Amino acid sequence: MQQFSDLNTPERILLGPGPSMVSPRVLRAMAHPLLGHLDPQFIGLMKEVQVLLRYVFQTENEITLPISGTGSASMEATVANLLEPGDGILIGVNGYFGMRLCDMAGRYEAEVHRLDKPWGEVFYPEEIEAALQKKAVKVVALVHAETSTGALTPMDGMAEVVHRHGAMLLIDCVTSLGGMPVKIDEWDIDIAYSGTQKCISCPPGLGPLTVGSRARQAIQQRKTNVANWYLDLSMIEKYWGDERTYHHTAPISMNFALREALRIVQEEGLEARFARHKANSAMLWQGLEDLGLQLIVPSEHRLPSLTTVTVPDGVDEAGIRQRLLQEYNIEIAGGLGAFKGKAWRIGLMGYSSRPENVLLLISALEKMLNK
Amino acid sequence: MQQFSDLNTPERILLGPGPSMVSPRVLRAMAHPLLGHLDPQFIGLMKEVQVLLRYVFQTENEITLPISGTGSASMEATVANLLEPGDGILIGVNGYFGMRLCDMAGRYEAEVHRLDKPWGEVFYPEEIEAALQKKAVKVVALVHAETSTGALTPMDGMAEVVHRHGAMLLIDCVTSLGGMPVKIDEWDIDIAYSGTQKCISCPPGLGPLTVGSRARQAIQQRKTNVANWYLDLSMIEKYWGDERTYHHTAPISMNFALREALRIVQEEGLEARFARHKANSAMLWQGLEDLGLQLIVPSEHRLPSLTTVTVPDGVDEAGIRQRLLQEYNIEIAGGLGAFKGKAWRIGLMGYSSRPENVLLLISALEKMLNK
Repeated sequence: MQQFSDLNTPERILLGPGPSMVSPRVLRAMAHPLLGHLDPQFIGLMKEVQVLLRYVFQTENEITLPISGTGSASMEATVANLLEPGDGILIGVNGYFGMRLCDMAGRYEAEVHRLDKPWGEVFYPEEIEAALQKKAVKVVALVHAETSTGALTPMDGMAEVVHRHGAMLLIDCVTSLGGMPVKIDEWDIDIAYSGTQKCISCPPGLGPLTVGSRARQAIQQRKTNVANWYLDLSMIEKYWGDERTYHHTAPISMNFALREALRIVQEEGLEARFARHKANSAMLWQGLEDLGLQLIVPSEHRLPSLTTVTVPDGVDEAGIRQRLLQEYNIEIAGGLGAFKGKAWRIGLMGYSSRPENVLLLISALEKMLNK
Repeated sequence: MQQFSDLNTPERILLGPGPSMVSPRVLRAMAHPLLGHLDPQFIGLMKEVQVLLRYVFQTENEITLPISGTGSASMEATVANLLEPGDGILIGVNGYFGMRLCDMAGRYEAEVHRLDKPWGEVFYPEEIEAALQKKAVKVVALVHAETSTGALTPMDGMAEVVHRHGAMLLIDCVTSLGGMPVKIDEWDIDIAYSGTQKCISCPPGLGPLTVGSRARQAIQQRKTNVANWYLDLSMIEKYWGDERTYHHTAPISMNFALREALRIVQEEGLEARFARHKANSAMLWQGLEDLGLQLIVPSEHRLPSLTTVTVPDGVDEAGIRQRLLQEYNIEIAGGLGAFKGKAWRIGLMGYSSRPENVLLLISALEKMLNK
């Protein structure tokens, strides 16, 4: 049969929407010999991962842990556990991941109320309040950082409105966590999920989530079983909690990697890390504008971790990406959904967010676009 | 806040029910710098992983791929995709994982018919036929290698009976794949799932599965959506297929690791690998019996990858395991469910299946049990 050679892929400069690049320290930790998943040493490590996750989520929520799947799995975990058939959910859709939330919530037989805004725009508390006045729901779901558009929906005052109407607030912070403030406790968020392969700069494969007291109570008081076995938090909680009841086998090496990636976040410090993301994105934005390119999201709502750029008329969107990859090993991404073929998405996340990467990308684009 | 030190855990000799030990080659491949998940080089690698998985599954099934979660996720993927609400499933329960299949199938609103046998025993085609004569179902699910008991249900003639009654055969080969024959095509199995952290000796985090033509057709002809978004094969198939439609972000590093682990399987060759597992387990069984210990499963149904041993009267089950770990860095496991506190489970899987590990374990047990 077919034989395959040693793994021998080039070192890519990952400036897409994730995975981001990963520190050699994280790669080394990941390659550490395995422990059993019920080994006391691994159980100690799980606790450490939880402490570190609480730090980046800025929360004291006990249930703060990585789901053993990618960010999409942690997204589904929030929806599957919080909603019972017939429960109402209001979902703000201003990009691809809001649509995905609608798809998931529908599968769990929730009554989905979709609030649409054009891609690239953001939601304000008044808009959510107006929608809640029309229709009371159990959960409001918003995408904090929309990976498909690069827009950041501010969370100030959001939970206050949601709670005043008796609902819970669920947020997607896949592209914000570790790269900009995600203040779960201060913002009074009820449940939130993320991924590891964006601003935390750990390889993809785990989906951190955090569950506040209201959401936890709602989950405990469910009348029906969670339809999803693998993502059932009542069992996952016991596996990660002091009981250590066997559920599944945690991805050991991925947790080694996540611990190291979070240690790096902790060493740098959240404030310094956020400032770095901001500074490098400012450098990118200036560079792109100097090339005459147009940024899609207005600066006040622009994500420092992900920038969307309009592809100029007459320029081959995919062709430029292909050349960046082939000639310079630089990866950027194209648009999704409404932005397909019309936008580039440039990520500066975690370990990828470095001035040398910005300078290189701008220089490469300059060469290509001026030809 | 709390600071955590560099990862510095001991090298364990993993002789439990998984994870098994992992070759340094696999650890090195896993630590290779990341590619983007839509990078042409990664897409090429995904195809290679599929070719290699088909080799261990001994199948030509096109849909043969690793689910981006652990073995429990691939188990749930088979159930969630194959069954629609109201569909009948007959599940053979002779251990813990048969019970888990019942739990999962119930969550997808299947009509679950449970066929029980004492833990440690196996199922025969006549028994399945008798059950199908009483009640026709859409799917029969059996655990090929029961990780909780160490018993191997032979698959000869099984599919013939199941198909004659118009049903499909789903099997769990989590603890058999890569360590003993799993002949998906020759046995005419319709759908099967496994994990990576057993006889394939790749860290946990991926769940290989394979879907035959009958099962594929049944999935394509579903009248209802799959209730589970993350495990919906109609979307996963497009992500792994030629369309490469974005679904989730594949765990890049885990796929690097799986590719290398499967390359090692291929280099050794399936027959040689199965013979090695057999020889080392024979050495283990002899050693245990020489110590006066009783093996639970009769030799004709005993798994070479996992052996269950009755804990002698008056011996502290957990105490011995703890001493093995603390004094010699050897991990074995206790029993689950009906075997809790009564049995040890000793795994000799993949890279862990080596004579030096057997000799060491027997010597350590001899010291401890004779005191």
